Amino acid sequence: MKSLPPLVFAAVGLDHRHSYDQVQSLLDVGGTCVGWWTEGTPKTLDGFVRRFPQIPRVDDRRRLLEDPRVELVTCAAIPCDRANHAIEAMRAGKDFMSDKPGVTTFEQLDAVRRAQQETKRIWTVNFTERFEVRAVTRALDLVRDGAIGDVVQTVGLGPHRENRALRDPWFYDKSKYGGILVDIASHQIDQFLVFAGVTDADITLARAQNVAHPDDPAYEDFGEIALASGKASAYIRVDWFTPDGLPTWGDGRLFIYGTKGTIELRKYVDPDGRPGKDHLFLIDGKETRHIDCSDAGLPYYANLHRDIVERTETAMPQAHAYKVCELALAAQARAERRDVAA
Amino acid sequence: MKSLPPLVFAAVGLDHRHSYDQVQSLLDVGGTCVGWWTEGTPKTLDGFVRRFPQIPRVDDRRRLLEDPRVELVTCAAIPCDRANHAIEAMRAGKDFMSDKPGVTTFEQLDAVRRAQQETKRIWTVNFTERFEVRAVTRALDLVRDGAIGDVVQTVGLGPHRENRALRDPWFYDKSKYGGILVDIASHQIDQFLVFAGVTDADITLARAQNVAHPDDPAYEDFGEIALASGKASAYIRVDWFTPDGLPTWGDGRLFIYGTKGTIELRKYVDPDGRPGKDHLFLIDGKETRHIDCSDAGLPYYANLHRDIVERTETAMPQAHAYKVCELALAAQARAERRDVAA
Repeated sequence: MKSLPPLVFAAVGLDHRHSYDQVQSLLDVGGTCVGWWTEGTPKTLDGFVRRFPQIPRVDDRRRLLEDPRVELVTCAAIPCDRANHAIEAMRAGKDFMSDKPGVTTFEQLDAVRRAQQETKRIWTVNFTERFEVRAVTRALDLVRDGAIGDVVQTVGLGPHRENRALRDPWFYDKSKYGGILVDIASHQIDQFLVFAGVTDADITLARAQNVAHPDDPAYEDFGEIALASGKASAYIRVDWFTPDGLPTWGDGRLFIYGTKGTIELRKYVDPDGRPGKDHLFLIDGKETRHIDCSDAGLPYYANLHRDIVERTETAMPQAHAYKVCELALAAQARAERRDVAA
Repeated sequence: MKSLPPLVFAAVGLDHRHSYDQVQSLLDVGGTCVGWWTEGTPKTLDGFVRRFPQIPRVDDRRRLLEDPRVELVTCAAIPCDRANHAIEAMRAGKDFMSDKPGVTTFEQLDAVRRAQQETKRIWTVNFTERFEVRAVTRALDLVRDGAIGDVVQTVGLGPHRENRALRDPWFYDKSKYGGILVDIASHQIDQFLVFAGVTDADITLARAQNVAHPDDPAYEDFGEIALASGKASAYIRVDWFTPDGLPTWGDGRLFIYGTKGTIELRKYVDPDGRPGKDHLFLIDGKETRHIDCSDAGLPYYANLHRDIVERTETAMPQAHAYKVCELALAAQARAERRDVAA
């Protein structure tokens, strides 16, 4: 492959810690961050400045949007504000990488799509539970090589740590984060479509609840979605109940059941087991074995860089980004109708 | 506790290998098996005779039913025949322990219930995935002691090995085994009710499919159920796709998510991990730790023995046995309506 010109980018909205990963990963593929903007002083700010003291803050984000060097704007603003940032950036001629969720309403999704189609910019949602997880890269290679036959089902278990002390008020306000299915279950919708190799799915179950946070009435602490597409199906469950005794934010698992084998990912920790993260267990017709995936790649960022230069869709097909958001919004709406009916 | 008179029992129907466990476990609590009857020569027969050469076969099961010494009849007949055996045994004055599923239709359930209520006999369904699993005993103790707070959700992953060479034709005939949800998902319905401490649940999802057995049209190889009861919920998935490389029949997992902690059971194997079975992982506010449950008890059989003598319901409340069957049948019916609609 011919080498690409270095990527120049800016960061708009640091409200979620994912901004740290976004910026670091883009620096890792040779990018230069010309500056960052955020509103006020979110609790994430100190950590960002500590990690990236060399990157300057700008007071008016138009300085970044009007900077002709900037090709890509990354965004981890409050979820309900991300669509506006995306539209603004694309109208200014920039490609846009959003933290998930990229949008929190169908209206935002429509507006983003319209702006993207009119400007021909890239609008990508960084599903960190795939793009930042080496074990997922390896699992996708195995599945695509036929290691487990046809995919029958994916089961994703996604407990998350609430971390109240680190959260700003938007975290407890559904009108701002969009609901638990839109917010953190969207990761697993993405993974199902990719592992099953399908472009759409039916929602067969969607529920969201506030189980144990009576003092935060606009919070959802548990959610689940089931999907079906052809002969493949998915079950997705998320919560905010990770216990403090776990040494990381969540015991994220992904089981991929095939007609000829099974893969289990212990993505971030193997509880009281092997050290480190990115554990893959493959059970096939011959054996049961652990595969350490710490040497697997994270191709999303380099692919995105190339897409920006060559106007391709290798990091994530544009239609896939929309479909994941659409399914997450539809699941959230269905869960809410159920709440009203119950 | 005062010691009980030894239990005398008989075995009727050996069509499923669970007959081995039933008889062995009753012998282990001091029982005496006066004889067994089965129709024809199921593939399970040789294994039974090899394990229990001292127990005589009878040609006419009435000899067992009319034997005044016999207090309990155990049954692992073809599933669709178990209800008739139960009714016959209870009408003959015997208590009855069925392999799961105890019934395959609502009509059978009604008939069994009527016979049980009229005769005041015990009708119990031996849910081996609870009663034969020491890790479940320990997990129940922990949950009831408050180790993980309130139960938010159970997630049961139940792959099973098809083992075609060992199966008789009924295994592939839904009219005989009742459908995959009735057959093998009933285990997990039982576990949800027990772990959540509830007596009923709503079915929020039920699907059953033939994904990869086109030559066995009356077979279901994948199924899933979701349940909700109050603030607790359950997800249950089963299949017949255990790969040959797994050293046991299935990588059965149970995740119990609570408001204050999580328990994971790796019931039968820890894939490429610790040796043996009955692995429990507890994550609470303080730590993450593995607990070997090989020293936990299996109280079902001893409790049943006492129930038979004292006419109590400690092994399993009678209403619970009916409720699990009713939910499994209702889920199966819902899955079939969906198939027809699709």
